[in-house]
Amino acid sequence: MDVIKQFEISKYSGGEMEQMNDSVVVEYSLTVYLFGELLITMLCTPKSLKYLVTGFLFSEGIIESRDDILEIFICEKDGIALVTLTKERAQLAQKLEVKRTITSGCAKGQTIFSGAEEKLHKINNSIAIDFDKVLKLVGQFNKKSEIFLETGGVHSCALCSQDEIVLFEEDIGRHNALEKIFGAALLDDIHLEDKMVLTSGRASSEIISKAAKRGIPVIVSRSAPTDAAVDIARAVGITLIGFARGQRLNVYSQQEKELHT
Amino acid sequence: MDVIKQFEISKYSGGEMEQMNDSVVVEYSLTVYLFGELLITMLCTPKSLKYLVTGFLFSEGIIESRDDILEIFICEKDGIALVTLTKERAQLAQKLEVKRTITSGCAKGQTIFSGAEEKLHKINNSIAIDFDKVLKLVGQFNKKSEIFLETGGVHSCALCSQDEIVLFEEDIGRHNALEKIFGAALLDDIHLEDKMVLTSGRASSEIISKAAKRGIPVIVSRSAPTDAAVDIARAVGITLIGFARGQRLNVYSQQEKELHT
Repeated sequence: MDVIKQFEISKYSGGEMEQMNDSVVVEYSLTVYLFGELLITMLCTPKSLKYLVTGFLFSEGIIESRDDILEIFICEKDGIALVTLTKERAQLAQKLEVKRTITSGCAKGQTIFSGAEEKLHKINNSIAIDFDKVLKLVGQFNKKSEIFLETGGVHSCALCSQDEIVLFEEDIGRHNALEKIFGAALLDDIHLEDKMVLTSGRASSEIISKAAKRGIPVIVSRSAPTDAAVDIARAVGITLIGFARGQRLNVYSQQEKELHT
Repeated sequence: MDVIKQFEISKYSGGEMEQMNDSVVVEYSLTVYLFGELLITMLCTPKSLKYLVTGFLFSEGIIESRDDILEIFICEKDGIALVTLTKERAQLAQKLEVKRTITSGCAKGQTIFSGAEEKLHKINNSIAIDFDKVLKLVGQFNKKSEIFLETGGVHSCALCSQDEIVLFEEDIGRHNALEKIFGAALLDDIHLEDKMVLTSGRASSEIISKAAKRGIPVIVSRSAPTDAAVDIARAVGITLIGFARGQRLNVYSQQEKELHT
């Protein structure tokens, strides 16, 4: 499935108009069915769709491990994902369905408050961070996004050890890119407790909550955090780094030393 | 209500670590009740909340005009908006409630496909665009975002005539910033058919669909469009401009001349 499409466009530069071809990122619609019932339609980049669905199911609390999944069948052409879980999860999913109806209301492009931070536990964060290594990883991360470099229309997300990028995903949605990383880690059995998450997007409370649920000790954003993200990171002990660019970064929360407002 | 909060952070630059205060954008949770029933909880910037709620109600098809609203009471301290509509809209809202349950599933940070483009009509787009004026407006737009300049954590949106910025809003969500603009226009009776929308965020299909529903003829993004956004803009006759920065911009769709892939 193509992730980039060519369009003939007009480019205006310094008073001159010119016709040319331009690469535009593809927006793909994936409808997820759980036991044959419509669960959600996601707008996404048509790549790593199985990882996206897996990460989403975990974030929503519909699955808790790889073993809960019997099958995720993706029909790329039709934009459909058919999910079958174990019997035990089926019953839980039904309960969640009721809750979801109440809490999410509707959400065309809106962000829904998860309230998830109430359930978050303290992270086992014993990573001694080498900030120069982090900045080196961010430099590699920036060069790695082929779709971004060609279209400027996607967010990137990576899972890193202290020394290298282990997983890398891109998507038109910053949440989707993160879900793909977590979905890949779940399906491929990659440990998260000693890894960092790098994201091109802003660090909001939801991003931090999702990472905290997975036990991620360090989050590095190329962009800004929100106050709620800083509060949650400090509460659970996640090291939160923002504006990681070039030779600079801001540490909003770290485990060694409590920072207070 | 504060939109910016101060945090003591550590700044790492060129190998040196320094303690300092940093401005971080506030993430605020607003729960909207329609006739006493929970409709949605939105994460947003606590500014222009009445405009946000109004724009959202219109985008969701819950209201069609200012007259449908009897009252929007905002309790800023508690993060609550109480909406009362006319009796006629109450019945419609109930019908939409059922539809919403089916289509939105859950949506923590996910973008839900609206399917709205099926209902979109051709735009009456007779604006002759002066691209130098557009770039001048984008320059003014960039300087106008005080929260962004201080925190780097918000998106901006503006409604412009050919010569000046008429409305300007900021929010942690690019959709929210757009809803605030449209809510303000609805409540303050500002015509949209001869205006441009400027956005700092990417132009996705949902942004174009929302603008098309209001009859906006021109959309200017500082960032990238998606292929679906270009397709919808071309189909309904919206002029879609992307990557408007400095002395350059890309025209992805324009009314005078049909562009084909």
